Amino acid sequence: MAERAVFTNMCMVERGDEVLVQRRSDRNWPGIVFPGGHAEEGEAFVESVIREVREETGLLIERPELCGVKQFVDHEGSRYVVFLYRTDRFSGELRSSDEGEVFWVKRDEVASLPLASGVAPMLPIFFGDFPRELIWRDGEPTLI
Amino acid sequence: MAERAVFTNMCMVERGDEVLVQRRSDRNWPGIVFPGGHAEEGEAFVESVIREVREETGLLIERPELCGVKQFVDHEGSRYVVFLYRTDRFSGELRSSDEGEVFWVKRDEVASLPLASGVAPMLPIFFGDFPRELIWRDGEPTLI
Repeated sequence: MAERAVFTNMCMVERGDEVLVQRRSDRNWPGIVFPGGHAEEGEAFVESVIREVREETGLLIERPELCGVKQFVDHEGSRYVVFLYRTDRFSGELRSSDEGEVFWVKRDEVASLPLASGVAPMLPIFFGDFPRELIWRDGEPTLI
Repeated sequence: MAERAVFTNMCMVERGDEVLVQRRSDRNWPGIVFPGGHAEEGEAFVESVIREVREETGLLIERPELCGVKQFVDHEGSRYVVFLYRTDRFSGELRSSDEGEVFWVKRDEVASLPLASGVAPMLPIFFGDFPRELIWRDGEPTLI
């Protein structure tokens, strides 16, 4: 019953009408994203998103809300799962990392930024009021 | 980065002040549960829970809400993930399956039923108003 899988997370941190984005330095997946990364072995998914946001933004988030799940089959045939969170509860000083510069933007300007591949179809989940799932099929994102 | 994982689901179907439970026939994991089962390869998690509820209860649920995630390391060392859903939208006639008898019970009586192992710690997630995560560590359930 077991299959190969990769577990990751992404989080939209909110401050009033602004959200925190990251301009990725990675040439393999360039563009604007919300911060996030991989869950480590044995790590709870909530713990992994708190750790990743802290590493990439300097902010300590609290009580991230699970707003949806994204999945696709990666180039190795693994089920690649991204847990999508959001929160407006955080403390600390904003600080960018080697992963990329982080900065606040107006929420309604996110869609017009040079987003990384695959990010645009997730926006309805981050901005929505109901947990959703996004799955890629034949290269096309399907929101269900 | 990939690891071995098993993807499953469980759903609390609500009807007024009642919820739908299943008395499992399986001797390996006996007791009362909410219906659910395994996600198949390439299947979206939402699709998998709709299919499993239909197979086990005869009911066609709509728009199941992701209310949390449970995980533990199974006996083969895989990360066993359970997506937890709930919904009060359904159609069809109630019909039990070989998996076990399904029947309605009062919501506030669930906790006192002879629940299957591992179900009781999930109840705060199903009955709560915020998506939560439950992870087993050293044999102990931890709600985070």
